[in-house]
Amino acid sequence: MNDALPAIKTLFEPASVAVIGASTKPSKIGHKIVENIVAGGYPGRLYPVNPSGGEVFGRPIVATLSAIPGPVDMAVIAIPAKGVFAAVQECAAKGVRQVVIITSGFSEVGNLEEERRIVDYARRHGMRVLGPNIFGLYSSTVSLNATFGPADICRGNVAIVTQSGAIGIAMIGKTKVENIGLSAIISCGNKADLDESDLLEYLVDHEPTHIVLMYIEGVNHGDRLLATLARVTMKKPVIVIKSGRSKRGAMAAASHTGSLAGADDVFDAVVRQSGVIRAESIQEGLDWCKFLANSAPPLGRQTVIITNGGGVGVLATDACEKYGVDLFDDQKVLAAAFAKACPAFGSFKNPVDITGGATAADYEACLQVALARDDLHAVICLGCETAVFNAAAFTEIIRRVHPGYRARKPVVFSLVGGEEIEHCIRVLRAENIPIFNDVYPAVACLGALYAQYRYTHHPPGPPAVPQLDVAAIRQVITGVRAERRRFLLAHEAQAVMRAAGVPMPQSRLARTIPEAVAHARQIGFPVVMKVVSKDIIHKSDAGGIALNLENDQEVIEAYESILHRCRQHKPDALIEGIEVVEMVDRRVETIVGARQDAAFGPIVMFGLGGIYVEVMKDVTFRSFPLDQRTVDEMISSIRSYPLLLGVRGEEKKDIGAVAAAIIKVGGILTQCPDISDIEINPLIVNDEGDGVKAVDVRILLTQPKEDGK
Amino acid sequence: MNDALPAIKTLFEPASVAVIGASTKPSKIGHKIVENIVAGGYPGRLYPVNPSGGEVFGRPIVATLSAIPGPVDMAVIAIPAKGVFAAVQECAAKGVRQVVIITSGFSEVGNLEEERRIVDYARRHGMRVLGPNIFGLYSSTVSLNATFGPADICRGNVAIVTQSGAIGIAMIGKTKVENIGLSAIISCGNKADLDESDLLEYLVDHEPTHIVLMYIEGVNHGDRLLATLARVTMKKPVIVIKSGRSKRGAMAAASHTGSLAGADDVFDAVVRQSGVIRAESIQEGLDWCKFLANSAPPLGRQTVIITNGGGVGVLATDACEKYGVDLFDDQKVLAAAFAKACPAFGSFKNPVDITGGATAADYEACLQVALARDDLHAVICLGCETAVFNAAAFTEIIRRVHPGYRARKPVVFSLVGGEEIEHCIRVLRAENIPIFNDVYPAVACLGALYAQYRYTHHPPGPPAVPQLDVAAIRQVITGVRAERRRFLLAHEAQAVMRAAGVPMPQSRLARTIPEAVAHARQIGFPVVMKVVSKDIIHKSDAGGIALNLENDQEVIEAYESILHRCRQHKPDALIEGIEVVEMVDRRVETIVGARQDAAFGPIVMFGLGGIYVEVMKDVTFRSFPLDQRTVDEMISSIRSYPLLLGVRGEEKKDIGAVAAAIIKVGGILTQCPDISDIEINPLIVNDEGDGVKAVDVRILLTQPKEDGK
Repeated sequence: MNDALPAIKTLFEPASVAVIGASTKPSKIGHKIVENIVAGGYPGRLYPVNPSGGEVFGRPIVATLSAIPGPVDMAVIAIPAKGVFAAVQECAAKGVRQVVIITSGFSEVGNLEEERRIVDYARRHGMRVLGPNIFGLYSSTVSLNATFGPADICRGNVAIVTQSGAIGIAMIGKTKVENIGLSAIISCGNKADLDESDLLEYLVDHEPTHIVLMYIEGVNHGDRLLATLARVTMKKPVIVIKSGRSKRGAMAAASHTGSLAGADDVFDAVVRQSGVIRAESIQEGLDWCKFLANSAPPLGRQTVIITNGGGVGVLATDACEKYGVDLFDDQKVLAAAFAKACPAFGSFKNPVDITGGATAADYEACLQVALARDDLHAVICLGCETAVFNAAAFTEIIRRVHPGYRARKPVVFSLVGGEEIEHCIRVLRAENIPIFNDVYPAVACLGALYAQYRYTHHPPGPPAVPQLDVAAIRQVITGVRAERRRFLLAHEAQAVMRAAGVPMPQSRLARTIPEAVAHARQIGFPVVMKVVSKDIIHKSDAGGIALNLENDQEVIEAYESILHRCRQHKPDALIEGIEVVEMVDRRVETIVGARQDAAFGPIVMFGLGGIYVEVMKDVTFRSFPLDQRTVDEMISSIRSYPLLLGVRGEEKKDIGAVAAAIIKVGGILTQCPDISDIEINPLIVNDEGDGVKAVDVRILLTQPKEDGK
Repeated sequence: MNDALPAIKTLFEPASVAVIGASTKPSKIGHKIVENIVAGGYPGRLYPVNPSGGEVFGRPIVATLSAIPGPVDMAVIAIPAKGVFAAVQECAAKGVRQVVIITSGFSEVGNLEEERRIVDYARRHGMRVLGPNIFGLYSSTVSLNATFGPADICRGNVAIVTQSGAIGIAMIGKTKVENIGLSAIISCGNKADLDESDLLEYLVDHEPTHIVLMYIEGVNHGDRLLATLARVTMKKPVIVIKSGRSKRGAMAAASHTGSLAGADDVFDAVVRQSGVIRAESIQEGLDWCKFLANSAPPLGRQTVIITNGGGVGVLATDACEKYGVDLFDDQKVLAAAFAKACPAFGSFKNPVDITGGATAADYEACLQVALARDDLHAVICLGCETAVFNAAAFTEIIRRVHPGYRARKPVVFSLVGGEEIEHCIRVLRAENIPIFNDVYPAVACLGALYAQYRYTHHPPGPPAVPQLDVAAIRQVITGVRAERRRFLLAHEAQAVMRAAGVPMPQSRLARTIPEAVAHARQIGFPVVMKVVSKDIIHKSDAGGIALNLENDQEVIEAYESILHRCRQHKPDALIEGIEVVEMVDRRVETIVGARQDAAFGPIVMFGLGGIYVEVMKDVTFRSFPLDQRTVDEMISSIRSYPLLLGVRGEEKKDIGAVAAAIIKVGGILTQCPDISDIEINPLIVNDEGDGVKAVDVRILLTQPKEDGK
């Protein structure tokens, strides 16, 4: 996709635009697009195209692209679906570089074939395609409003990328109402060619864009998206609203867009891993955008709450915990800092309670203290309407104080009260002061800022690349493929683990009773014995396992009875032998898995074994590659993590060895893309320093291509 | 508290009110209260009282209460704290029935003694006290605005009870802005005498009040509150905003109000058990109030979403799952219902997607279908701004359709877009149409309505009253008290369990080796043996336990070695004998507990044993008494519930026997208030029909009174 970058620049900064389907009739989308381009003051060359001819907004309509004298960088196509392919052929003939297909009626209604035909043709002829099924795009760099949405878009520093056209158009209106300026807004619709990653490639270095807001329903090339997001989020915050959180919502999203919604817990984990801040609702997303677009970054984590009401102070304290905002706790420092500014009867704890008697002047004094001090890094200023609270005076004070701190320290305000308070909020919001009529949304904004702060201050390190004997693994794969299997047998899976250096219980294959006894003596009693046969998948059911064998005699008896039971269970089973295995003390059992996720590529999974995963759903996911810090954080994120730290007087477990195993398993999937699934269950974790042992390993290869899938 | 009711009527409907501290100075609270009472049009007799005399709002100020000619029902006291006691004495002399103490400076700043002195005096003289540390109260029944908050309160059907004065005053303003009418608003402040329960006693039968909104920080007499709430919620919805959810928030609440915040998970569980709907933020609480105050109750659970944008449809689907709104699922019925009304290319699935081309007329057609059908019980109507969406026409349609369905079917609207959309929302909200500028708050309102629906349609049944041998339990308690202990010894705890009918493993006390052998034979091998001694608390540490004894010889050896080890461990221990206990097959281990909660009285607790409770925090609480349905729901509410249903091919466990044990344990606490704590850990649960066994039981008595605590 090396050709993506120049084309993507053409999309955002075309020197000339043709609108195919430009119409003299105001009811037509092509008419509206020309109107918006003209009204938006696009300085490039604009060519309305329509065989009917005529004139639109003072521009002559040309009959065909070929009739245009100069070059055309971008063609916006707004004609019925059946004519789009021919239009794209025309574009190719004209040497257009970027095609924007507004038209709907393609994959989103099941018409995947025509969409593919168009995109394949365009790509073969050196063009990139945005859409189809979109409302177009706005790019502030060249003042281009090539949408059929509202004409008046405020210029600013927020870029919006949306999969849903309807939400995009609605957001244009909402950003206007909320006084949020846009650097760009792009609808990517069916994402038949260009997708979010391509658009982010442009936005990452786009100076005017300080923050990106995305609305996503489904993801196609998730691994690329994650890598791109990780680059963008280190430079500018990315807020994502993804619908389809619920099972039913995911179904609705899939039926609506045709793209893969995927499990929301996986999506959530991996985009956060890439530094994304996730909002739930449209309003939340826009609130956070506006705040992050206008606020100074914090210099530290010590936040102080100033309030004239204990009740809202407590609500804000709750909200701080919910949104990950740390409150400054040094009572002595607070008392010294606020003693002079805080009225009598006030409290210097955090929340600093300046009491219901506080006037606007008291607020000003306390705000000045909080803003001036280097040990306070963010301020939450709350007010309840009282008899002495003068909303007009408060408005003036905020206006006076604001310019001084705007560039230095993040502050949020929340006021609760009647019409005067609401008026004050409306006035200050219009001036881009982050003030809200409830406590939670105010604190949530600060929470979003601190999420960005934490990520950029502790970014992932260089990815851990495990040393694997890839050749050995490939040899195993070749053998399995030769037998047209997808499941690896136990000894094959063990060979893969050995090649990756994941420790396993000692194990030897015996084909005779004396061999079994010799192996057991070498391994050391007690041992476990298991039948080895391609024809017996469920060994327990077949009586193919014997546990806790403590001496020669028990090994001999087990050998005979396993063979006897398995032959009874499946008389025609080909039995390769019996595996003699070290008996592992079952300390803490974990599950480590990895799979090629349809949306996100290699994904690793970790959880405590058995019931914890199956019943308690206590699992966590990350995308691969992983760095050491992220894998440590992954392990500690499960609820049952205390079991690894050691509870009830038990020793701490070897968490480092678990991390190593996770990295190795993810590495196998990345370096050997023939493998689609690995599950170690259980991975026994011993006390710290004593490592882990992969007791049971299940490995699956990808569907072979000749299967046609 | 039988005297509460008549006094509480006096509080809300006094025939005469004196304001002690009425002042001619506009800066004084007493001045503002007289102003509000006069402006509010209170028809009763109003007496401003102040030794300084003068006139206020055309009323002469009398010097003392005694100078008032007629009776005084209620006295509002707004003078400095040091004069309040004397004023209350005056009230008693005058025969005042209800004292409202606005003044602060009592228990909330540590001055508990003066507060107690005032309340004790008032109660001894037949008066009830509201406050201190409040903003007063408004009661629509007698048009009494005895607050120092805003003068203009809209009359309506929402009653607000708030612990925080500042939030209360702010809410008065906010209700005005939001066009929410109030039937009453009362601040209860320090709750030195009257608390939320007293106020609810009045509101439960108060015709004008259709819904109650409460802001709570801490609870004092929680058991009474729960019982009162349960009665109110069957008649009218109660929405509670409780702050102090977070650990730090709870600390802040405690320091701010002096009342017991308690663990939020306990509060949350027990108020929901009483039918309360819990809101997180002030805005959420007010949104829900307004919706429930104005909406028809649903006749069933089948909700349909109508939308012109797939994206917002998916967001609404997610929100439905979050807020417990059930979507109607019969595709055939939906297709038949909407085929005619829905435009071409629309989707009849739920969300019903009428496409971005939908006009206001299309909305009207689909809304009429959804509203007319008896099989659709609630409607979520969503709109995104599009080129063809005419906000003015939409406004008119809603206005036209609304009167017809208002009384019959709940509907919520959400529109996302620009200034025209926002204008439409403002206009319709002012007419009490539930329309929002985002999807989540709209669906959340419907969720609150359905929470009320579910509770009132499946209310708790009659409380289960377990049959206990209370006399036998009292006898045990008497014995323990005589020895000045609080911990019950094992055999005492077992006697309590026997008296309650909670099954235990068979157990017999042996004082000699032949006795031990005889007991073991009778019980049946294998057995467990445990030392019995008041002086040995931790039996395992002392070597006082032997497990899995399979024959006479092992019993003999165990007897000797237990004695030997315990004497080594604690030479002066008085050993009563050795308990021989049936060895129980450890199926599923659970914990059943009960305790006298400082805030809520008898509370029962249930969870799966060991790690599940300790590490996974997978426990649930309910207040006692419990009905059968609630205890069943309690058991099924833990995350690890599938383990009781049987996973991995295991049999279903005896859940009924668990429920019986929970009811018995709660019954012991209720019927024997000397017992403060019971913990059965583990309660082994066998397969269905095979019951439970309480293996280890820990019982604690209340702190004896002579300890002075």
